[in-house]
Amino acid sequence: MNFVSIQLDNTSNEPLYLQLFNQIKQAILSEQLPTNYRLPAIRTLAKTLQVNNVTVINAYKQLESSGYVISKKGSGFYVSKPNTSEISLMTTPNPKAAKASINFSSASPHPGIFPTDSFKACLNQVLDRDKGFAFGYQETNGFMPLREVLVEYLQKEHHILTTPESIQIVSGAQQGIDIISKSCLNAGDYVITETPTYNGATDAFKSRGARIVPVELTSEGIDLIALEKRINICKPKLVYVMTKFQNPTTLCYTQQTLKALLQLAQKYDFYLVEDDSMSELSYKDKSTYSLKSLDTFNCVIYIKSFSKLLMPGLRIGFLVIPDNLLDHFTRTKQMTDIAASGLIHRSLDLFFRTNKWEEHLSYMKAIYTSKYELMLSQLNKLKVYNITYTEPNGGLCFWLKLSKNISAYKLYELCLDKGLLILPSTIFYPNTHKQRDSFIRLSFAPCDAKEIVEGIAILEEVIKGYSY
Amino acid sequence: MNFVSIQLDNTSNEPLYLQLFNQIKQAILSEQLPTNYRLPAIRTLAKTLQVNNVTVINAYKQLESSGYVISKKGSGFYVSKPNTSEISLMTTPNPKAAKASINFSSASPHPGIFPTDSFKACLNQVLDRDKGFAFGYQETNGFMPLREVLVEYLQKEHHILTTPESIQIVSGAQQGIDIISKSCLNAGDYVITETPTYNGATDAFKSRGARIVPVELTSEGIDLIALEKRINICKPKLVYVMTKFQNPTTLCYTQQTLKALLQLAQKYDFYLVEDDSMSELSYKDKSTYSLKSLDTFNCVIYIKSFSKLLMPGLRIGFLVIPDNLLDHFTRTKQMTDIAASGLIHRSLDLFFRTNKWEEHLSYMKAIYTSKYELMLSQLNKLKVYNITYTEPNGGLCFWLKLSKNISAYKLYELCLDKGLLILPSTIFYPNTHKQRDSFIRLSFAPCDAKEIVEGIAILEEVIKGYSY
Repeated sequence: MNFVSIQLDNTSNEPLYLQLFNQIKQAILSEQLPTNYRLPAIRTLAKTLQVNNVTVINAYKQLESSGYVISKKGSGFYVSKPNTSEISLMTTPNPKAAKASINFSSASPHPGIFPTDSFKACLNQVLDRDKGFAFGYQETNGFMPLREVLVEYLQKEHHILTTPESIQIVSGAQQGIDIISKSCLNAGDYVITETPTYNGATDAFKSRGARIVPVELTSEGIDLIALEKRINICKPKLVYVMTKFQNPTTLCYTQQTLKALLQLAQKYDFYLVEDDSMSELSYKDKSTYSLKSLDTFNCVIYIKSFSKLLMPGLRIGFLVIPDNLLDHFTRTKQMTDIAASGLIHRSLDLFFRTNKWEEHLSYMKAIYTSKYELMLSQLNKLKVYNITYTEPNGGLCFWLKLSKNISAYKLYELCLDKGLLILPSTIFYPNTHKQRDSFIRLSFAPCDAKEIVEGIAILEEVIKGYSY
Repeated sequence: MNFVSIQLDNTSNEPLYLQLFNQIKQAILSEQLPTNYRLPAIRTLAKTLQVNNVTVINAYKQLESSGYVISKKGSGFYVSKPNTSEISLMTTPNPKAAKASINFSSASPHPGIFPTDSFKACLNQVLDRDKGFAFGYQETNGFMPLREVLVEYLQKEHHILTTPESIQIVSGAQQGIDIISKSCLNAGDYVITETPTYNGATDAFKSRGARIVPVELTSEGIDLIALEKRINICKPKLVYVMTKFQNPTTLCYTQQTLKALLQLAQKYDFYLVEDDSMSELSYKDKSTYSLKSLDTFNCVIYIKSFSKLLMPGLRIGFLVIPDNLLDHFTRTKQMTDIAASGLIHRSLDLFFRTNKWEEHLSYMKAIYTSKYELMLSQLNKLKVYNITYTEPNGGLCFWLKLSKNISAYKLYELCLDKGLLILPSTIFYPNTHKQRDSFIRLSFAPCDAKEIVEGIAILEEVIKGYSY
């Protein structure tokens, strides 16, 4: 790549540093700039492009924080190279993966569709209204007016009846899982999970010293017969499930299974942890029954995440906690990080109260629906290769069963070489020796239409080359 | 109290709801409105005062979140009533304590002196610059440019040499302690702490299943002879210390003690956890040697909090982590909450880079110095009652030894009845059976000059009545 050829447009709405970032990123993705290539010194490039040093610095930092380059102390910035896990793909600069030009692995929305402007307006309104109080210590359970607005939302949209006192606002679902682990588990306790499941949850349970017992899924939800057997053997403290668009299988529980689960929790005295990150994203029906909505026994700890629906970087979600656990959860949250940022709580409160949440959600749903349908239509092509899947009719992912002779992990590596990032099923199995290598998860969340079409084309090409 | 007599000033800079909040708060503090008194219905009061319903709602919410009133579903708002622990005083609506009109218990600054405007400018600049990226997933260790600027700051102001890769930004010191616990401790492990010490730290260690072994302080820092004995008996994983303006004793370690501690860590193979929340607040000398600055063995985990120096509600602080623990800490942070809010990281980065941090710190120091000197001059009066203390020459607190016949806890209760909140020494002892009841901690951080003078006058009056 010749850096002199970089064109920056002073009249564009896009900041100069982002323009520069994008052009260098493209050069890395297209391998015009190979691994370990040293980028020009900051001053040199600034001079060449006739821009401020800060523009180059910001572009390089963005490249670094996105994992395209690494900096070596005193020596400059170098084009970098990968690993997998759902979390590390979200957050860790990961060279080879970051270089993939099409990303079917992340279920996070593209930052371009975040409601940045309307949220910014809320932030400013809160700062004008509350001044320094927005930066004081927030009560541990979260800003009370926000908890109240969430209670209304749960009642209206989720058929969940609760009170502000039962809500603990958390810094994202992952913190919710961490707080549940610390409040409910001691070393040696058992947790039953679905298999496959979200590895961020099982990692948190294991970190607390708990033992994970996986139970298979049927088309109606967790396998109730297998579950009851395991319960009898291990006496679990918690059973962790995702009842709507399960991650990664995209499965939805039937109401019958939900009710049977509640009966089991009552009979055997354990808590159900229901992790709900996307029940709003139903593209066909509007039925949104959850365990929590049917929880007359008060045995469900409900986790709601806003990362997929709003913006992951807000780091906000909440728990609905059974009454007899409330004090204990509050103490755990205090020991964990005292309280969260009041500014974000107050701004989100205003975002809800001024109906921006509703607007944004219907905007997101419209975008996601069209991406969902596009990917679904493209996937049709793969049926001739013995690839099968169920139409989830919601959520952000598809879960594809591969034909017998294909290894998901090998497919992941072959796709990566062609610039396509997918998730192999191996990472979703909590017990390493029972990992299955025959599924892949494809998300359309961060991709545009062109990328969806191109990505499925790459996948088809790799499968074709692989199997025949 | 007659609500008709409330006067709201439309022309004031202070929002109407805050004016209303302050007047009702005063009425509660002066007991014109007794405990359990039901506030007027929102619409009624709005009509009486000829303001919008929302103004009354916001005032009531603020009263509620500050602990002055509680809401009962469907029935309205009632004047509320107390408990103690350093953390719960910071965050939990605590009726009797919240009703105290003078607060010597909290070491947090008053929200009125927060740099709200300059931080708001940074927030807006970041949003204009980074748009949706400010709300995307942040890398787990924190925004790289912020880590770089912190490295410079540590070198310049703290004589600490480190690299951005060694820094993990955390949501406040408490999360730092939680992450250290999860990364370094298993059930049954030993942690040695100073006694007295910060109860938020010992609670987090205990929650991990660790056992706490307290060691006394001398005037030069932790008692090295007692420490080495305990080390030999319990083989600790961690030794947790506050070397500058220790909480609660205000003690500073000598350089000799620091060096001896490092030698012990090396000899017996444990990590030192150094919790630094206010080493910047030295009012006399500028020597800021810390364990970390002398840590040639790479055995110190350093925790820096910005809650006392900047604003607690930012929920931001950082760790400096020894090289061989880095990967493990990153994984723990991922399991804890994936990553923090990128918006706050980016804004704080800009706050540092535009020299606002420096400006703010010297502003805070000037304010704190004058409060420190005022409280010191007032405390002189108490010497005749056999109250003794060392002048800390820094920090935000005084640690007073009471005369033999006075119980600190009883003094706390008597002061509370007169509207003054102090902290009795009992809460700072990690082992309940060894709690000492003969010290109190007084902080001047959230008080103005008038409150400092009045508060010490109340304390004098209570001590006088108590002992004679």
